[in-house]
Amino acid sequence: MEKGQISDIFEKPISVVNIGLQSMALSVRDQGIKVIDLEWKPPIDGVPFLFTTKDGIDIDEANEIVIQKIKQARPTLIGMGLAKDVIPNFHDHLFLHAGPPITWDRMCGPLRGNVMGALIYEGMANDEKDAEKIASSGDLEYAPCHHYQSVGPMAGVISPGLPVFIIENKTFGNLAFCSMNEGLGKVLRYGGMGPEVYERLKWMKSVLYPTLKRALDSLPNGLDIKALIAQALHMGDDGHNRNRAGTSLFLRVLLPSLARTNQDNETLAQVVEFIDKNDHFFLNITMPAGKAALDPTDSVKGSSIVTTMTRNGTDFGIRLASMPKRWFTAPAPFVEGLYFPGFGPEDANPDIGDSTVTETAGYGGFAMAAAPAITKFVGGTPQDAIDSTLEMYEITASEHEGFTIPVLNFRGTPLGIDVRKVMQTGILPKINTGIAHKQPGIGGIGAGITRAPMKVFIDAFEALRELS
Amino acid sequence: MEKGQISDIFEKPISVVNIGLQSMALSVRDQGIKVIDLEWKPPIDGVPFLFTTKDGIDIDEANEIVIQKIKQARPTLIGMGLAKDVIPNFHDHLFLHAGPPITWDRMCGPLRGNVMGALIYEGMANDEKDAEKIASSGDLEYAPCHHYQSVGPMAGVISPGLPVFIIENKTFGNLAFCSMNEGLGKVLRYGGMGPEVYERLKWMKSVLYPTLKRALDSLPNGLDIKALIAQALHMGDDGHNRNRAGTSLFLRVLLPSLARTNQDNETLAQVVEFIDKNDHFFLNITMPAGKAALDPTDSVKGSSIVTTMTRNGTDFGIRLASMPKRWFTAPAPFVEGLYFPGFGPEDANPDIGDSTVTETAGYGGFAMAAAPAITKFVGGTPQDAIDSTLEMYEITASEHEGFTIPVLNFRGTPLGIDVRKVMQTGILPKINTGIAHKQPGIGGIGAGITRAPMKVFIDAFEALRELS
Repeated sequence: MEKGQISDIFEKPISVVNIGLQSMALSVRDQGIKVIDLEWKPPIDGVPFLFTTKDGIDIDEANEIVIQKIKQARPTLIGMGLAKDVIPNFHDHLFLHAGPPITWDRMCGPLRGNVMGALIYEGMANDEKDAEKIASSGDLEYAPCHHYQSVGPMAGVISPGLPVFIIENKTFGNLAFCSMNEGLGKVLRYGGMGPEVYERLKWMKSVLYPTLKRALDSLPNGLDIKALIAQALHMGDDGHNRNRAGTSLFLRVLLPSLARTNQDNETLAQVVEFIDKNDHFFLNITMPAGKAALDPTDSVKGSSIVTTMTRNGTDFGIRLASMPKRWFTAPAPFVEGLYFPGFGPEDANPDIGDSTVTETAGYGGFAMAAAPAITKFVGGTPQDAIDSTLEMYEITASEHEGFTIPVLNFRGTPLGIDVRKVMQTGILPKINTGIAHKQPGIGGIGAGITRAPMKVFIDAFEALRELS
Repeated sequence: MEKGQISDIFEKPISVVNIGLQSMALSVRDQGIKVIDLEWKPPIDGVPFLFTTKDGIDIDEANEIVIQKIKQARPTLIGMGLAKDVIPNFHDHLFLHAGPPITWDRMCGPLRGNVMGALIYEGMANDEKDAEKIASSGDLEYAPCHHYQSVGPMAGVISPGLPVFIIENKTFGNLAFCSMNEGLGKVLRYGGMGPEVYERLKWMKSVLYPTLKRALDSLPNGLDIKALIAQALHMGDDGHNRNRAGTSLFLRVLLPSLARTNQDNETLAQVVEFIDKNDHFFLNITMPAGKAALDPTDSVKGSSIVTTMTRNGTDFGIRLASMPKRWFTAPAPFVEGLYFPGFGPEDANPDIGDSTVTETAGYGGFAMAAAPAITKFVGGTPQDAIDSTLEMYEITASEHEGFTIPVLNFRGTPLGIDVRKVMQTGILPKINTGIAHKQPGIGGIGAGITRAPMKVFIDAFEALRELS
């Protein structure tokens, strides 16, 4: 290091955040100091900051109601069941999917693959050709998981006979549902199809599901998932793309009941081996925990807080607490990331999955500062992970005291995307996520980082301005 | 924040490291910027940096041999056994203890408590009075754990009938041993005595030990502890005073074998509950892993690397790789920390335990940057934890590529305390540790941070200068 430079006085690497034009930071960059350029653009022309709705509701006050409800949530894993048995209003031809509403003709490859594979898994189709025919026949009803108190990672199809976790928000009594995680690679939720995919799912239904269900049923109060997520954020997880700690803690707390309800040692061994080999297992529990925390905020008049953010691989959609039935959509963006060997960006489907429920609820990508080691999976450097969280404070209404980040001196995670702040700053929500192959049948090919598209926030903001 | 100050250009809090006189950093401190004052003092008068020993051995080259041996270590948990059955040269009246050699008359309260309690546990004494008589009679042989390929946390007594973990360094074939962790509070290793202490130890011997031993015996290759520690450092552990991740991972990897060798569901449930309730359980595995990694470095001529650093509650002692049979001792320092309710500094015994084997082997307090949440247990701030690790790079010979710290951009942990660097910088090794009550019988009362005493390094350096 040469003498007479800014960096001389610091023991550790320093970095500078440059807001706006990249050229402004040239002199600092020339000294070898890391400069983070925020993608700031001036606010949309002529859009003032909105303090009240047309009919005079104080938006900050409305948002505070939403934020408090999310913070008060106590998502608790209370059991498991088959989708058709436990999800309200389910029926034998209902196939839920991730993201905003979509019809078969507009579905992306991995979502089509997931629907077709689910038909074979359910015994409703004999092979892929048969499945495609049924899927496109109009005999099935497609609906977003989000319309049925549910969430699904990646393509996220929940078919009638799929076992799901049942999360209860103990504060408000509402339920949320999510499938079990199959692992990475060629798996159904990434659109993967083939005998090994169905065989794994059958084992999950006939062995894993009853074993976990028995253990959960033996717990009088269920498992406190909020506490597990809070601990996991102190152990290097973000609760979205890194769940090694959460998966470990989940196994730890469930173990005594798994042991007490054990019927066969070899079965128990295979169950814990399956979970041990899949560090993403806990994702399918953090997701419905987020859904359970967010759902009670529906219909808070005048709120500018985003309470749904999700993608079906074709469209990216958000909904606001003040307009829970109205989707604002835009084309789903691509994901920048790391690919498994043999795959590259040319194979990638656009962004897909309900897993952005974690960012919406104040963890996941928004808590990346807690998970510096995640960068080995999604790319970037540990400093990028910290910067991501710091940036998200600019567009959120509050900080979640229940989820703290040690390295930021136990600061609460950024909570509650405020459409107005996105418009003012031009900063878009950052998401870390998996990458599916664009063709049906292949599966997962990597993981990375993307941002929500601007259009959904422009449209939602316009709707908020018109709200009365 | 006022304009025109250094801090204006930074998005995040910045901090300045000031070396030497505190007054030098006044102007920076005045601007509200955090200043870390390193306790630097000029090198001991007239002591030049030592490049070779009297007989011409290149000290850096000698140290490189030591460092490479430590890095190449592959500590693996291969089984368990009773101390007298598995530790070489054990006998029925041998009581090992933490720290450098000490006689009964100089033993501190918690070490006396541990010896007395162990006599009752072993059935060699009927009560505390009886135990004190036997302990002081001269009929027992006391020796450091370190002289018997062993380590013990806190008072660290290993009595003949105590079950111990067996760690094998697969690279060099040497073994290391350590007891099982009892938990915190009134426990024997902190000098705690009483019926509940003996009852817990009896359960550990009759239930926990055979259950774990069966599971371990069923593993053909044992458990790779180096890999578990490396993962735990990516999950908020330091491997000394925070072992929540390590304990979770240990349970995870052992679970399939625990299930397959299960003989009784309720026993298995109680075993996993006991481990789940004690986040320090993995400490008694990280410690012998460190011992197993360090022992092959004994007798590397001319090395200035510290390969033993330990305390018996009265004396603090170190040994160098070049002089493995020679102890350099000084009075054990007190610990600055957080106390359990009802206790304070006036109750505290000076620093005690072999657990500093973790710092010696490149983790523990030296890896605190990996464990910002540890500050809730030992005090200080997350920034202090990061600063601790950064400071230790100043007195270590290398960085351990096998143990990396995500938040420092995956930099290897500081490895190999070099006596010469301690002398040059005046920086003393930082240790995070538990605090025992000074009276026998009471047990653990807190946890905190301390530093090794200067005298042991001055003496060791003098000896190194005289070495030929």
